[in-house]
Amino acid sequence: MNNFTFHNPTKIIFGRDTHHQVGTELNSFGIKKVLLLYGTGSIKKSGLYDQTIRALDEAGVDFVEFDGVVSNPVISHAREAVRVAKEHKVDGVLSVGGGSVLDEAKAVAAGAVVEHDVWDFYTGTQIEASLPVFSIMTLAASGSEMNGNSVITNETTQHKFSFNSIHSNPKVSILNPELTFSVDPSYTAYGSVDAISHVIEGYFTQSSGAAIQDRLAENIIISVIESTNIIINDPKDYDARAQMMWAATMALNGLPKNGLEDIGFPNHMIEHALSALFNIAHGAGLAIVIPAWMQWYADKKPDRFSRFAKEIFGVETAEDGIKALKNWFSKIGAPVTLSEVGIYDKDILAISANAAVMAEMWGLGDEYSEKEIKEVLYLAL
Amino acid sequence: MNNFTFHNPTKIIFGRDTHHQVGTELNSFGIKKVLLLYGTGSIKKSGLYDQTIRALDEAGVDFVEFDGVVSNPVISHAREAVRVAKEHKVDGVLSVGGGSVLDEAKAVAAGAVVEHDVWDFYTGTQIEASLPVFSIMTLAASGSEMNGNSVITNETTQHKFSFNSIHSNPKVSILNPELTFSVDPSYTAYGSVDAISHVIEGYFTQSSGAAIQDRLAENIIISVIESTNIIINDPKDYDARAQMMWAATMALNGLPKNGLEDIGFPNHMIEHALSALFNIAHGAGLAIVIPAWMQWYADKKPDRFSRFAKEIFGVETAEDGIKALKNWFSKIGAPVTLSEVGIYDKDILAISANAAVMAEMWGLGDEYSEKEIKEVLYLAL
Repeated sequence: MNNFTFHNPTKIIFGRDTHHQVGTELNSFGIKKVLLLYGTGSIKKSGLYDQTIRALDEAGVDFVEFDGVVSNPVISHAREAVRVAKEHKVDGVLSVGGGSVLDEAKAVAAGAVVEHDVWDFYTGTQIEASLPVFSIMTLAASGSEMNGNSVITNETTQHKFSFNSIHSNPKVSILNPELTFSVDPSYTAYGSVDAISHVIEGYFTQSSGAAIQDRLAENIIISVIESTNIIINDPKDYDARAQMMWAATMALNGLPKNGLEDIGFPNHMIEHALSALFNIAHGAGLAIVIPAWMQWYADKKPDRFSRFAKEIFGVETAEDGIKALKNWFSKIGAPVTLSEVGIYDKDILAISANAAVMAEMWGLGDEYSEKEIKEVLYLAL
Repeated sequence: MNNFTFHNPTKIIFGRDTHHQVGTELNSFGIKKVLLLYGTGSIKKSGLYDQTIRALDEAGVDFVEFDGVVSNPVISHAREAVRVAKEHKVDGVLSVGGGSVLDEAKAVAAGAVVEHDVWDFYTGTQIEASLPVFSIMTLAASGSEMNGNSVITNETTQHKFSFNSIHSNPKVSILNPELTFSVDPSYTAYGSVDAISHVIEGYFTQSSGAAIQDRLAENIIISVIESTNIIINDPKDYDARAQMMWAATMALNGLPKNGLEDIGFPNHMIEHALSALFNIAHGAGLAIVIPAWMQWYADKKPDRFSRFAKEIFGVETAEDGIKALKNWFSKIGAPVTLSEVGIYDKDILAISANAAVMAEMWGLGDEYSEKEIKEVLYLAL
């Protein structure tokens, strides 16, 4: 078991009707005026927008709205939101939506307290302070609700980069599984793939770890599969949506990677290049990259892959385990090949060049040059 | 899955040599002078005392010592420590030891900022502020390193009562598994029983929960058993000590109980009475109470007990699962009957009367009167 530091101060409020508490939570942090950040209107259709406004009003919290956050959020929009946050002197940022809205909220909160471009945080500048961030989640996927990560795409440079800072951990995240009842089947599937991806990166790439951590990772994967299988038949099954939401949060709250040595995020690295260039949903991109990467990587860690096959799918060989996962991704409605999303041979060069830039930034340069990334991508065709 | 709130801001620093960081951690919280609280001298023998003093000196943190904390810490000693903390105007409390020292440290830190008796916090007065608490752990058992719980015995009233407050969560807990190498076989066993007890209370008493939470609890129990089996043969096996230490922390950091409905801590209730009156080690008392309570309770939750038998010991019936746990407690060196620790028939009346007071305080009065507590205790003879 490797040395580690674990520190996750985010308060999680989980369950039915909990989103009505947002106003009192903001009060408890002394927030007078928030930037209310959201996407492209689904919260208006669902009634969540009205309920949020009412909760803010009742708690006497003033707000400024900023909408239009897109899936795979972009830096130009975040810059505009920073400008609005500064202009109105808000003292907090409230994200109402999925991981994309929350990722942008973290950018805005950090950007609002500095004079330089918010993109600098994605290229190496450390975050030393931030407005407090709060969230009401409408999607079980990214785990952004309980970590300090943010991923944003720079449309000009076509880079999808990330930062991580404890200053960006939400102070409070409200997780009401009922708010995910209306998530369509595709995004439900992408969310499941995303949550699984967050634990299998460390699960497979570790050079050493601990059995307790293996079982924790396996529990999360099994919980996601178990819940998703129920949700695809009954999208309003509360317990399945709840387990899915909690599993997605646990997947990237820092716990699963404790004690693991030498872990990397190669699937995310390649997927970020994919979605930076082609704007496909992150979970869809992962469903394509992961089985190909597993096939490419399995020989390097045979024990890990046998264990995965046995513990998750009850099959014997690494190969059968990979097949089982790929089939399951496909069954729940996620694409598992590049061609399914209209990406072909001719595009691989651009993707691998883009990903290779990240390999250097993420300390994976020794293992992944353009050559290796291409090998993975060819297996994904 | 029941609604829940999870908020655990304690920072965990885990691994080899990590205790040397204590000074810099205190610096990062702006601490100038701490009360250094410890037990009855084992940290002097092991060299940890000298290493701690050196780390404080190097970081320029002043300190006042207060030693003599006993296993099953007592309120008279905590009161004296509060007096010393106030007299020397310390701005933090550093616990170096096991759960007993840390429980008393939390009492001292809360007591140092009020004028009333610190015992009031154990009988209903809410904690609204506390000096910051820090810990270097030398035992894997109580989970006190990552929660706001404190248990103390009042020698005058012979009550062993507890409080819980987020203000009492350690700011930083340093967990170096090497510091547990010298824990003797008995206390190693008691620690293992204690850690297991923290998850099985909720595991068995819940009226509803979630599969992800069941698997989390089972993972912790299996991890403790797996590690302890190695440690009893090789007390200096780092990975086993590490997994044990992390499992004990996870057992009572709030995660396992998330989403569980209607849980109680009946075994702790009865054990607290036992150790308040007879001053036996908490883990020893639990090893006696748990198998008896399980036997008494199994019919009320047959599904939970079958699941436990199958998942933990691979046996079929509830009865065999209970036997397997009792045998395992015995095998690792914990007592499993009252007579083994010199408690007999004639003592049961006093224990059940004492526990019944707690049943009322802990909201278990409907289920546990003296009659039911006696039934459990008779099964433990």
